[in-house]
Amino acid sequence: MKISKPTLILDKEKCIRNIQKMVKKAADSNVIFRPHFKTHQSGKIGELFREYGVDKITVSSVSMAKYFASNGWNDITIATPVNINETDEINNLAKNNVINLLITNVEAIEILENRLTNKVNIFIKIDTGYHRTGIAFNDSESIDKILSLISNSSILSFCGFLTHSGHTYSAKSIDEIKDIYNDTVKKMQSLKTKYKDEYPDLILSLGDTPSCSIIENFFGIDEIRPGNFVFYDIMQYMLGSCNIEDIAVSMACPVISKNADRLEIAVYCGAVHLSKEKILDKQNNTIYGLIVEFKDDKWSQPVDYTYLKSLTQEIGIIKTTESFLNKVNIGSVIGILPVHSCLTADLTGEYHTNENEIYTTMRKEFYE
Amino acid sequence: MKISKPTLILDKEKCIRNIQKMVKKAADSNVIFRPHFKTHQSGKIGELFREYGVDKITVSSVSMAKYFASNGWNDITIATPVNINETDEINNLAKNNVINLLITNVEAIEILENRLTNKVNIFIKIDTGYHRTGIAFNDSESIDKILSLISNSSILSFCGFLTHSGHTYSAKSIDEIKDIYNDTVKKMQSLKTKYKDEYPDLILSLGDTPSCSIIENFFGIDEIRPGNFVFYDIMQYMLGSCNIEDIAVSMACPVISKNADRLEIAVYCGAVHLSKEKILDKQNNTIYGLIVEFKDDKWSQPVDYTYLKSLTQEIGIIKTTESFLNKVNIGSVIGILPVHSCLTADLTGEYHTNENEIYTTMRKEFYE
Repeated sequence: MKISKPTLILDKEKCIRNIQKMVKKAADSNVIFRPHFKTHQSGKIGELFREYGVDKITVSSVSMAKYFASNGWNDITIATPVNINETDEINNLAKNNVINLLITNVEAIEILENRLTNKVNIFIKIDTGYHRTGIAFNDSESIDKILSLISNSSILSFCGFLTHSGHTYSAKSIDEIKDIYNDTVKKMQSLKTKYKDEYPDLILSLGDTPSCSIIENFFGIDEIRPGNFVFYDIMQYMLGSCNIEDIAVSMACPVISKNADRLEIAVYCGAVHLSKEKILDKQNNTIYGLIVEFKDDKWSQPVDYTYLKSLTQEIGIIKTTESFLNKVNIGSVIGILPVHSCLTADLTGEYHTNENEIYTTMRKEFYE
Repeated sequence: MKISKPTLILDKEKCIRNIQKMVKKAADSNVIFRPHFKTHQSGKIGELFREYGVDKITVSSVSMAKYFASNGWNDITIATPVNINETDEINNLAKNNVINLLITNVEAIEILENRLTNKVNIFIKIDTGYHRTGIAFNDSESIDKILSLISNSSILSFCGFLTHSGHTYSAKSIDEIKDIYNDTVKKMQSLKTKYKDEYPDLILSLGDTPSCSIIENFFGIDEIRPGNFVFYDIMQYMLGSCNIEDIAVSMACPVISKNADRLEIAVYCGAVHLSKEKILDKQNNTIYGLIVEFKDDKWSQPVDYTYLKSLTQEIGIIKTTESFLNKVNIGSVIGILPVHSCLTADLTGEYHTNENEIYTTMRKEFYE
């Protein structure tokens, strides 16, 4: 493998397998599959989803909605509390696309009503326990106020309740993820029970990658929106959401230095390539990634007793064993499985697939 | 201030003051000032240095050397262990520019000798205690071996010893930073004493931002290479390297949600804008940034009892007081002083100056 600088390699087979699996799971449970495209941010990777019938997506910014709309996606949920400073862009998008916005407060509804001329759908963002944003599931007063404002609008249509159980990422076990999922569903269902007579078509939308990977049956909800599963990463592996073989991206990078006394290898690959996301491994080491070896166009299992122990702007330091240190030379190319593939992907301008294609990302295409 | 998405604002006055101060300090000590341009990565900000007579720079990658060479910089130290997979690019650069490379091992010297046709200068990278990369200052055997290989080369010229005391970033006090600096200088001087008869022009190069900000007199060394001081950040402020008023960049971003029960404000600004760098503040809170208010084209002191407490991909959550929560509306624009300005700057495509200019960065220009 000829690599001169940090290069994000995409194993297409693994990526497609991850997509297929989630498509099938959603179909088996008869729920809408609206994958979150913030993880890959690439039109070309979007096409891989389209081949499996996906036609609804989730994004995390208006800019990302514009990017994917320009790639032919026309049913888009912007899954962050609506940014009223971008109402012009939202209005433009809503001209030719189904745009679903998230509301967490009354003020935003009033502003949208005043500024938009094209119709949009409104999800009320519900807080079921993550406590990042959203209206508490039992705050009927706020929900009723918002629903009443929407019902008086000719521009805004209420489409359902949406939540993100991001606290699954702090779970200590698979059982805890299941508990969080079940608790989330219960809280969301209480809303459906309450409002379904008035809004028979209302959708319950939820589903982070840990939950969607671990739960087998999405009975009682209407839509799932996982994103990270397209690549997975070390964080998901540690949570139990995936096997190590499911991780579909790895950063190929050259070895620039070795230290036999400390059993350390320095690579040209830093925080500007991987992000500074870190995690505790099973031995309680703080790690920034696990190390793999390339063989032809595939990579190995993680190298034993070897991990990325620190990361500065452009340099990574790998802690390893004598045998791996001796195997590796200055200029050798090794791979790093990222802790958080969304942030790593965001930092790259392109994926190099193991089928010799280059898939550019939004970051690169926007600048071009 | 009309801001619709996260926008990195540069206070030119502060930035120029930071540059002037370091230029003067270097001149007063009669050392070469070779600032590290990895922090700003912008041709336009480079021009601000040039106005103060700077003509030698440091970069952290061959790509960055190419970028700044194309901006008219022709004396460049690439301050990471040389990446032998980029020898073609290095050879091209060395055709018309003074290029200084870092060596940490014998193998790289042999490869450079075989592959380069244009002359380059070689710094031996010394480890004085940071233990990231470099040859231990007292490992005479390795140093002598490298020097002997260089002396037989018609392409490679030895120019001196270079170190980076990155362990100043873990210092608990200003006195500890001074101790690390003094220890570093002592170790480096032992090398000069040993080799100066054979290499009378050899340069001792060192100087991270904490040391260069705190130490008043660089007696006994030849060159300093700080980078972060051009902007500073919360990390430097916590270390005691700068005052809060010296921080020259802040991320302007819109408020998208508020929670009165938790006294929290959500902003459109996440890990893809600021990076996930975090730090403990004086009250032992983990913080991802401090919050400022804009007034005209300037920003305030940090808002009391208010900090960025968490960061997901595109959303930041600010912990605050009742009074600030009430002052801020949905759509208000507030500023975030970054924990690590180098990583924040790397993530941006452009700086918006408070004099209504836009300074693009390497990341954006390379894609264009």
